[in-house]
Amino acid sequence: MYDVIIIGAGAAGITAAIYAARANLKFEIISKDVGGLTLWSSDIENYTGYHNLNGITLIEKFKEHMADYNIKVKEDAVKKVEKKDNKFLVKTEKEEFETKTVIVCSGSSPRKLNVPGADKYEGKGLAYCATCDGPLFAGRDVAIVGGGDAALDAGNTLLNMGINKIYILNINPELTGTDKALMEKVTKSEKVEVINNASTKEITGDDFVKGIKYEQEGEEKTLDVQGVFVEIGHVRNVDFIKDLVKINEKNEIIVDKEMATSVKGIFAAGDVNDIPGKQTIIGAGDGAKALLSAFRYISKRG
Amino acid sequence: MYDVIIIGAGAAGITAAIYAARANLKFEIISKDVGGLTLWSSDIENYTGYHNLNGITLIEKFKEHMADYNIKVKEDAVKKVEKKDNKFLVKTEKEEFETKTVIVCSGSSPRKLNVPGADKYEGKGLAYCATCDGPLFAGRDVAIVGGGDAALDAGNTLLNMGINKIYILNINPELTGTDKALMEKVTKSEKVEVINNASTKEITGDDFVKGIKYEQEGEEKTLDVQGVFVEIGHVRNVDFIKDLVKINEKNEIIVDKEMATSVKGIFAAGDVNDIPGKQTIIGAGDGAKALLSAFRYISKRG
Repeated sequence: MYDVIIIGAGAAGITAAIYAARANLKFEIISKDVGGLTLWSSDIENYTGYHNLNGITLIEKFKEHMADYNIKVKEDAVKKVEKKDNKFLVKTEKEEFETKTVIVCSGSSPRKLNVPGADKYEGKGLAYCATCDGPLFAGRDVAIVGGGDAALDAGNTLLNMGINKIYILNINPELTGTDKALMEKVTKSEKVEVINNASTKEITGDDFVKGIKYEQEGEEKTLDVQGVFVEIGHVRNVDFIKDLVKINEKNEIIVDKEMATSVKGIFAAGDVNDIPGKQTIIGAGDGAKALLSAFRYISKRG
Repeated sequence: MYDVIIIGAGAAGITAAIYAARANLKFEIISKDVGGLTLWSSDIENYTGYHNLNGITLIEKFKEHMADYNIKVKEDAVKKVEKKDNKFLVKTEKEEFETKTVIVCSGSSPRKLNVPGADKYEGKGLAYCATCDGPLFAGRDVAIVGGGDAALDAGNTLLNMGINKIYILNINPELTGTDKALMEKVTKSEKVEVINNASTKEITGDDFVKGIKYEQEGEEKTLDVQGVFVEIGHVRNVDFIKDLVKINEKNEIIVDKEMATSVKGIFAAGDVNDIPGKQTIIGAGDGAKALLSAFRYISKRG
């Protein structure tokens, strides 16, 4: 019997694991990959104590931190969490774990663009991660679909990758990002053109992307681009647990301020829960909070 | 008129200030000192991404981070926060600020030992910060009063400072710390002796501390020590605002999961609020959360 199973290895899951190790709990941390969406950030300038480093470097530091405690992430995908008496079964593709508590840190995945051509050109010019795929487009013209902080972060990433021209196709009348420093950095670049009130209609091309069609004030227009980056929000990774715990209309797991969900013994931290502000530092803090709550829960029930 | 006044410059206040700067808000951060209780930690091993550094070094990194944004902490003490229509007045010893929102990150201070001799010997052998004053006791015998994580952290600090013998006078039947790694590290040392069920009665000495009297199972005993470190919990720094916002029985400011207090426009993050687990990483995450909540509040009300 485990004390705690941690699902997901982004900032929240990693921090929960470090606290679990320090508390001498019997635990596993299970995830398909390590780093979560932090990996996709161009510049991390607001993880207190670290400035001017990218997501990949910060996650390397998180990995070193886990190595100090000999924490190994189990590479596996959780298929289902079930309640059984006063414990839980966590079923993965490969194994099954019996545990007193569960901490859900499964984060989110990019929302797919739902227009003709989007599926066809995925991996052939259409991408969901500027940090990962941006370098392929050096010297070319690209469009970013979106207008929030994620779109601006993608723009910032691409600016550092020798892209020729970056269009930001924003469906709203103005950019909706809240990070003004990032917004100014991106929009003041000569390489960037923000097109507001632009509703994306189709991705066109032959074997690869050649253009993007959008509608602006009733008029259909086309941009010649060789790449499209989609940044239109995220969907929470809750399929394996959404029948068990209460979620809100955005599919986020509802938690209280101690990260407890609607089911005693299950906690949720990081982007997967319903706390606004999806930030690495918030995920880390709330991962610690969730583990300490799980620890108190175990101590009380024995 | 300010957008936000941040009170306190520990991990929570510093992070709130970094987020405020990035959001281009008009703000001040006001504090008597920079670093808060993080400064007093011996080893920070659980601030995700940093391992094996002390509190002083981590705060140096926080200061560098603030310097990037040209954030200067106003050295001043807040005397009172008042609500005036839909804004607030923050009155300090030197100035008065009118602001749309307030973020309280004023943290906590060590609880004083209330026995004969405690006041008399403060600064003359009796101390509240092992990190700060430990080196003065190299080669000597000291007692730590307390039995929780803070007492163990003090023990750990003193172990690295060449102290001869460390008694831990714990009022409970066993140590109450939750950080098992820390507990093991301290209690397995030959230099450390834990004395349970020990109720401290008096600090004795001449010009300086020479001993500590305690009662154990009805019997009064004395230890010859030259130093006493008091680690019996903390009191929240809420005097300037406790008439305005709701606090709990521990004098902690009651917040919701977005760090909002009972008064719209006032937020509280870090050790001063009622979230359990007083940790640097939690303070940092919740400082970000509080600023983002303040930002949304300002955006909505204009």
